[in-house]
Amino acid sequence: MTHHLEQITHFIIEIEKLKNVERKTKPIGMQRYENSAEHSWQIALLALSLSECAERPVNPLRVVTMLLLHDIVEIDTGDKFAYDANHDDYENELKAAERIFALLPQAIHDKYLTLWKEFEAAESDDARFAKAIDRLMPVLQNLHNDCQSWVENDISISQVLAKNACVEDASPALWKMVSEQVVEKGKAFGLRD
Amino acid sequence: MTHHLEQITHFIIEIEKLKNVERKTKPIGMQRYENSAEHSWQIALLALSLSECAERPVNPLRVVTMLLLHDIVEIDTGDKFAYDANHDDYENELKAAERIFALLPQAIHDKYLTLWKEFEAAESDDARFAKAIDRLMPVLQNLHNDCQSWVENDISISQVLAKNACVEDASPALWKMVSEQVVEKGKAFGLRD
Repeated sequence: MTHHLEQITHFIIEIEKLKNVERKTKPIGMQRYENSAEHSWQIALLALSLSECAERPVNPLRVVTMLLLHDIVEIDTGDKFAYDANHDDYENELKAAERIFALLPQAIHDKYLTLWKEFEAAESDDARFAKAIDRLMPVLQNLHNDCQSWVENDISISQVLAKNACVEDASPALWKMVSEQVVEKGKAFGLRD
Repeated sequence: MTHHLEQITHFIIEIEKLKNVERKTKPIGMQRYENSAEHSWQIALLALSLSECAERPVNPLRVVTMLLLHDIVEIDTGDKFAYDANHDDYENELKAAERIFALLPQAIHDKYLTLWKEFEAAESDDARFAKAIDRLMPVLQNLHNDCQSWVENDISISQVLAKNACVEDASPALWKMVSEQVVEKGKAFGLRD
């Protein structure tokens, strides 16, 4: 039992490092960039709040666990901006997942690694919903923050719409609302079409 | 449906402010203090990882939802250090919970407010486990961070042991392990008995 508890302690201390992984988005009203740990908290709550609106039924515990875990790999790989050409870094991220989850007792390791892979594959209803929520959050932040990360990185309206279209999988009504706002705000803040 | 989605968006944007609420603990290896949003992420994962070790069975989804929500009131009230004399600020925190959850659709408001109150009451098995996890995390951080927040605030070993004894409710084996380390590390870093 003690070894089991020590392993969990080791894991939770290791993942402190995610608080130091910087993303491209500034929290609304703040001058600093957000980190992946606080982002993970926010998307977990967004998922819980939207789960009843999901187009296909989802298991909230599985979705939330995926979202709390999915960025931990960035401790080793850094955050990849969704619009970057090298956004897909699956092999390195998998190595990171295997290293970090290996700190845990075997049964928890197996569970977390399976959920992490399921999220990345984005094939199950739970994973597709979780992916949509992860994409949705920075869109909502940009819509309330003068399109900060889109303006700073010269992202066009059509790039935003293409990259985040998976939100429609989660909720067509939500995507309709959000995509209309993307066009409106994008034009207002000078984004290219 | 659109109004429902707008309400959830309003809520998730409002709670961005939790990323700006500073706690007394510095993440291990960092010079800055942590904020309550990233803390909430970490304790949600600590709870998920320890839930099978709980002395009494708990519902992981309820526990995690409580932990993700419980600090949101600090947007209005600020963080209260566990060892402060004015730590108990229930009336103001309840007002904050009512204000912030009222941004949500009625059914979600009701659910979150009920869970928030259950956490604060700390009477159910889920709430007692969640409270223990919330207390445990800064203890683990201090044990790996030269007792930083205890040293900075002149907290004694006996204060640490008394304030966090509720960890024993969640897991006697865990509390035995951790409390022994508190004594050992506390002495090594010059804490008063």
